[in-house]
Amino acid sequence: MSFNPPEGFLFCACAAGIKTSGKPDLALALAPQGAQAAAMFTRNQVVAAPVTLGRSNLRTSHGQVSAVIVNAGNANCATGESGMKAARQVCQSLAKELSLRPALVFPSSTGIIGVPLPSEKIIRAIPALARSVSGTPVAFEQFAKAILTTDTRQKLASEQIQHKRRTVTLAGVAKGAGMIHPNMATMLVYLFTDIAATPLDLQKALRPAVEDSFNCISIDGDTSTNDTVLLLASGKSGVRLKTVRKQFECALVKICRSLAQQIIADGEGVRHVVRLKIEQARTRTEAKQVARAIATSPLVKTAWSGADPNWGRILAAIGYSGVKINPALIDIFLGPQQICRNGAACAFDKAAAHQHMTQQEYDITVRLGSGKAALDFLSCDLTVEYVHCNADYST
Amino acid sequence: MSFNPPEGFLFCACAAGIKTSGKPDLALALAPQGAQAAAMFTRNQVVAAPVTLGRSNLRTSHGQVSAVIVNAGNANCATGESGMKAARQVCQSLAKELSLRPALVFPSSTGIIGVPLPSEKIIRAIPALARSVSGTPVAFEQFAKAILTTDTRQKLASEQIQHKRRTVTLAGVAKGAGMIHPNMATMLVYLFTDIAATPLDLQKALRPAVEDSFNCISIDGDTSTNDTVLLLASGKSGVRLKTVRKQFECALVKICRSLAQQIIADGEGVRHVVRLKIEQARTRTEAKQVARAIATSPLVKTAWSGADPNWGRILAAIGYSGVKINPALIDIFLGPQQICRNGAACAFDKAAAHQHMTQQEYDITVRLGSGKAALDFLSCDLTVEYVHCNADYST
Repeated sequence: MSFNPPEGFLFCACAAGIKTSGKPDLALALAPQGAQAAAMFTRNQVVAAPVTLGRSNLRTSHGQVSAVIVNAGNANCATGESGMKAARQVCQSLAKELSLRPALVFPSSTGIIGVPLPSEKIIRAIPALARSVSGTPVAFEQFAKAILTTDTRQKLASEQIQHKRRTVTLAGVAKGAGMIHPNMATMLVYLFTDIAATPLDLQKALRPAVEDSFNCISIDGDTSTNDTVLLLASGKSGVRLKTVRKQFECALVKICRSLAQQIIADGEGVRHVVRLKIEQARTRTEAKQVARAIATSPLVKTAWSGADPNWGRILAAIGYSGVKINPALIDIFLGPQQICRNGAACAFDKAAAHQHMTQQEYDITVRLGSGKAALDFLSCDLTVEYVHCNADYST
Repeated sequence: MSFNPPEGFLFCACAAGIKTSGKPDLALALAPQGAQAAAMFTRNQVVAAPVTLGRSNLRTSHGQVSAVIVNAGNANCATGESGMKAARQVCQSLAKELSLRPALVFPSSTGIIGVPLPSEKIIRAIPALARSVSGTPVAFEQFAKAILTTDTRQKLASEQIQHKRRTVTLAGVAKGAGMIHPNMATMLVYLFTDIAATPLDLQKALRPAVEDSFNCISIDGDTSTNDTVLLLASGKSGVRLKTVRKQFECALVKICRSLAQQIIADGEGVRHVVRLKIEQARTRTEAKQVARAIATSPLVKTAWSGADPNWGRILAAIGYSGVKINPALIDIFLGPQQICRNGAACAFDKAAAHQHMTQQEYDITVRLGSGKAALDFLSCDLTVEYVHCNADYST
């Protein structure tokens, strides 16, 4: 798949020597004529320096962004005052190179926590990086690749809207892998569009799209310190958001869901993606709470890794989710097959159930019998590979 | 170690054929002249039939228990009305054999959820079981062994109090392994004492002891459907609880803490027990909430399994615990060595830190800098063996 980035954006990436592997680890996105921006960040109280600075720059610039600079391999988190200084130096250096105000630069970092950011390596790489930007699909892909950490593949999605012979393009890139949980964990997402919109318009569209996508997935329940979703609009299509609001919101949700699905599928050690369909909840909030309890239960997730239709563990997780339930009303389905009726065992074809669970992606439906709200939530199994992957990440 | 059970109790166990392994799976404790009782149960809303029946029997008998019957290998949970019927039949059958009112029998089950309890196997084994009871250390150990499921060893603890030439004995047994989390998960604990006390006295002593022990441990964050802590007092020592209240409460906490530590150390796949010492919290409740966030983070727990001093993951877990914190005040110590100062990296001896973490049991201290409350919380690592152990439990 090849993705044409929207008009008004240029991309580039390089290996600045932050990752010890020598792989690309520094990515730049430019909006030469500027872009309107909206963003959402992690709710973790421990936040990385670039998150603090990015928030502050957006306030100072009133939602204007001209350049995004992302490094992978180091989160610049829990690095104290010197971490803030390093993030500022990176922005100032890029701003100087491009003759911009520093507040127009939006910084991100992802990688290990608590290690000083080697800002001198980034600063040294900036001049060449700024000279090599381009609007080709290849450059866009390079950007997508350089922001990865333990991800095994790049994550891209794109949508187009037609309006009176004009085309609006939306394209997004993401990185994820571990530490993914509702409220956006070690996840960076950059969404670019050539629609014309104010920062407020963009923020209004972004919030519900994030709630329905990135806040409905969980790999390991850990919430990171660096999560960022940034939406930039160049205005180059000449189409105003308010004239195609419905289609735009719809396309934005589609892209976000696609990227969220790609993040889960590429989660550390993930072999099975499980779509939890919570139905008959009193409210969407309660449905999400039940989904999270199931999606973060190590007992449930290890059963999934063994393709074991152990619905008792799912029922137990629902029971301790904190949502008031009546166990005698709960039904659980594995794909089309019912495996628990009225909170108790029911006859089912175990071989077919096991077979269903060997698929790379499958559904589990939980009916709570207490209301009409429903929610889809993406989760995954907990495998031996996840443990291997995380047992010696920093050493 | 050999443990003399307290006066006034007799024990026995056998293999009734519930475990497919053929290992002992049915345990009986008798108080021939009766016992006063107090109990605490799981807070999961999905509860097993024996928990419902045990609660109801205690109410009917006003806190009197003459017999405890425990089966391992089947939780009799999510088994609907027929599960309740099966639990009642077991109690009735034992009551008839012993010429007791059924409400004087206290039932427990542990094992797989959602499979009908083979009550006929239990009922068939009862007559021989009831004839073979004895007050020897060997019989007490047999009781401790028969209640185990995926545990690798029995869990026993004992304390004595001297009062005016009389001796009061307390002895306890426990089973744990997976699904252990505050609020008592797949955990059965039976505490026996020959002190003389009313059910109300016992309940007053039991609640704080459980809060300080079994509710301060976590293996995998899952809360079970069958947890029970039962305290029985035969009165045979002739010493009244109110005359030795302080010593009794102290001895009870000691036993509970010892059993809690044994449960964690024998957790599924556990190679390292980590004692989280949360200090300088505003309240004990907040200290517990922070401890739980750390103790249930897969990223933290996998780092522990690799003896990796990745304090950034601990800091991140504190940040999303929900407790209001100031990251710039947080200090983290690995044993005596500081590894994070004021929420940021500080120089430390990485080789020594790694060495410290290869111990079977070690301390991590977190100072929140927000108050004076402190709490010890036992947790453990998440290992490849845990995943193996739980990936194919039911199949």
